[in-house]
Amino acid sequence: MTSDTKRRGRRPAGADTKSALLDAAREVFTEQGYEGATVRAIAKRAGVDPAMVNHWFGGKEGLFARAVLQLPVDPEVIVNELVSGEVDTLGERVVGRFLTVWDSTGGGQFAALIRSVAGHQMALEGLRDLFMNHIFRHVTDRVAQDNSLFRANLVASQLIGLGMVRYVAKFDPMVSTDIPTVVAAVGPTLQRYLTGSIT
Amino acid sequence: MTSDTKRRGRRPAGADTKSALLDAAREVFTEQGYEGATVRAIAKRAGVDPAMVNHWFGGKEGLFARAVLQLPVDPEVIVNELVSGEVDTLGERVVGRFLTVWDSTGGGQFAALIRSVAGHQMALEGLRDLFMNHIFRHVTDRVAQDNSLFRANLVASQLIGLGMVRYVAKFDPMVSTDIPTVVAAVGPTLQRYLTGSIT
Repeated sequence: MTSDTKRRGRRPAGADTKSALLDAAREVFTEQGYEGATVRAIAKRAGVDPAMVNHWFGGKEGLFARAVLQLPVDPEVIVNELVSGEVDTLGERVVGRFLTVWDSTGGGQFAALIRSVAGHQMALEGLRDLFMNHIFRHVTDRVAQDNSLFRANLVASQLIGLGMVRYVAKFDPMVSTDIPTVVAAVGPTLQRYLTGSIT
Repeated sequence: MTSDTKRRGRRPAGADTKSALLDAAREVFTEQGYEGATVRAIAKRAGVDPAMVNHWFGGKEGLFARAVLQLPVDPEVIVNELVSGEVDTLGERVVGRFLTVWDSTGGGQFAALIRSVAGHQMALEGLRDLFMNHIFRHVTDRVAQDNSLFRANLVASQLIGLGMVRYVAKFDPMVSTDIPTVVAAVGPTLQRYLTGSIT
């Protein structure tokens, strides 16, 4: 796909463009690292207009999320969904959404994400930027009275750890506990991290 | 060290024995996996009496913790320390102890542990057995009124995630937040998982 794209130069928006951008992104992020890779360089490699990156992926971080981290959802969609509901059920909705997203791929994709992040600085920087700057900071900035960044870190710690125990280490009984039971146990933790007392 | 030990056969207890057991354990766990490896096989490889494994490491799981996971502390010592204090400050003490243990190695050893666990089934099984059967189940069995295993899973999820964010992904500001501040934020979560309502 990539070499074919290179031969043909710029091409119209569509499924081929999206696929070419994903291929080019994996190459450029690997070569340049997360910080070094630019939307311009990725678009050039794919032979498409740089505006297509924003059109299809909402920017560099969204492209990284899909191409390298292979997240099963668009982070921007998730953020909008989370912040549009009641503030005092936000904790439950965050953990519920986390579980439905990753349970849907049988947990294998979360395990792959952790392996990738644990072994590669580039994936780690991308995950950190995505999680902090493009997901949870948007959430905590809207609901937290103070310590927005530290609160986002706390939320990340509980969600990442939940993923580790449920999908990677597969602790029993967490690996097979139904979502409402996990939401009931973990929701209040996230609610306190988001809007409660943490001192 | 290992080949030297093999030549000389059984030897008295001491630093050499301990070191020979650690070397032999790394080999046998790698060859046989966590479940397949036996104390007897490891002791034989090291050329020492199997009783030395219990003497130095408290059993197979303790030997695994030191040889493969390279935990900076003896899990049995930690459990005794945790359960000997007041029940209503247990959550704070658990997270405080977790942070002092891993901060002491600059976090690098936790990151190495996660890389090892993420990539190897053997390390993962050993970690799960250690965490659930030899650390937290002892703690939750003594303090929890119900759901002891699920509570231990929840504690594990918050601690492992905290380690991921502080030592592996190095989220700012968590990477440099002082221990009392983290304990104040996370302690109540662990206290609820251990002794509070989770339904």
